[in-house]
Amino acid sequence: MNAELKSGERIDQLYSKNISIIQSANVFSFSLDAVLLAEFASVSKNKTKTLVDLCAGNGAVGLFISERTNAKIYEIELQPRLADMATRSVKLNNLEDQVVVINDDLKNTTDHIKKDSVDVVTVNPPYFLNYDTSEKNPNEYLAIARHELTTTLNQVVKTSADLLKMNGKFFMVHRPDRLTDILTTMRHNRIEPKALQFVRPSHGKLANMVLVSGIKDGRYNGVKILDDVIVHDGDHYSKSIEMMLYGKR
Amino acid sequence: MNAELKSGERIDQLYSKNISIIQSANVFSFSLDAVLLAEFASVSKNKTKTLVDLCAGNGAVGLFISERTNAKIYEIELQPRLADMATRSVKLNNLEDQVVVINDDLKNTTDHIKKDSVDVVTVNPPYFLNYDTSEKNPNEYLAIARHELTTTLNQVVKTSADLLKMNGKFFMVHRPDRLTDILTTMRHNRIEPKALQFVRPSHGKLANMVLVSGIKDGRYNGVKILDDVIVHDGDHYSKSIEMMLYGKR
Repeated sequence: MNAELKSGERIDQLYSKNISIIQSANVFSFSLDAVLLAEFASVSKNKTKTLVDLCAGNGAVGLFISERTNAKIYEIELQPRLADMATRSVKLNNLEDQVVVINDDLKNTTDHIKKDSVDVVTVNPPYFLNYDTSEKNPNEYLAIARHELTTTLNQVVKTSADLLKMNGKFFMVHRPDRLTDILTTMRHNRIEPKALQFVRPSHGKLANMVLVSGIKDGRYNGVKILDDVIVHDGDHYSKSIEMMLYGKR
Repeated sequence: MNAELKSGERIDQLYSKNISIIQSANVFSFSLDAVLLAEFASVSKNKTKTLVDLCAGNGAVGLFISERTNAKIYEIELQPRLADMATRSVKLNNLEDQVVVINDDLKNTTDHIKKDSVDVVTVNPPYFLNYDTSEKNPNEYLAIARHELTTTLNQVVKTSADLLKMNGKFFMVHRPDRLTDILTTMRHNRIEPKALQFVRPSHGKLANMVLVSGIKDGRYNGVKILDDVIVHDGDHYSKSIEMMLYGKR
């Protein structure tokens, strides 16, 4: 390993994959959302040629997926500090030939990547509406990553639709309390929802995350409700989550 | 019991409730959908004053709910043959003072019941789009009950919104493959989705029914994903379904 760490940074390994990620509690750390999204996104080793990860943060989702595909992966991140962490993580994993970090506002993505050319888009966007009254994180890095301060759900989905080729696939992780926003915004932007998977903290609890897939210009309807992901089983991780995190149980 | 049965009819009892329903395999029989919808609908013994059940069929949903509320219940059914069965079932249960069957197209409901006056609407509408190519039931009674031949999802939700008072509650059972249609149509008609409950034939299977609740003029978002209903556990009904059907296990 040969990584330049800045103040407050550490290197975390996702044990189920051979990937190391530069993290920082003060700036941004990937969490279960990123692991679930990477697992949920279906990619093909050779048929997927181009994948774009929007709202890439420290680049975790693109790096996790890189093991399963030979696709060129573009990570789009607005915040220079986070894009810099992502760039150094790419280097740390010797993936400079496959993974490219672009530090720009996602609404400018088509300045860098041709419209209607992308096979797969993944995105873990800010979850919370930017109501003036909503409680924001006083840390600006985290506030931007979590609240719709610099982008909106509609902008995220519109950019994804612009990038995707016809029948290209879209994968997003979000909060189920915004499900109506999610499905209406996807259909409005020509990405028809095709599968939902709800994530519950434990059996019998309300879902607190949702994974959603869609197809650009897909036929209306036909949504499949996949089996729930249950995160905890008693006081430890469930089998399926242990597999995702550690590759074993 | 004092019921006039017509050819092919039988009387079924829902054992968990003290309710008998006139059924007919050739015309219409209530099924698990109706039991689940009645269970899912939240009503108050005394605060719910008026409840309307649209697409009432043989009246099962309204009759099942009647035990839990003193509300006046209106059952709207287009098909005269089914409305007639519902009327005779109301009599059979001595509920003529509480339950009124109206034989009319649901789009005319506000000719009978004042707009913006209803506390709760329940509906088990036709699930299937009326594509010319879709396979329809050759039995016209069943075809109308199952396919959008004489009404549409939009008409159902629009009528519900017309009837409901502000903050009135809407409860529907439908198919998850049309979830995007359902949520967009509800929001478009000012009934904001508030809870979803998916029904799976057994553990690990794709959901084949969804129960959805909404509030007229409710604040956007805040959808709760309730715990799944699992119908079968091995080769028999699950505990929760046995409770609904038999009131015991």
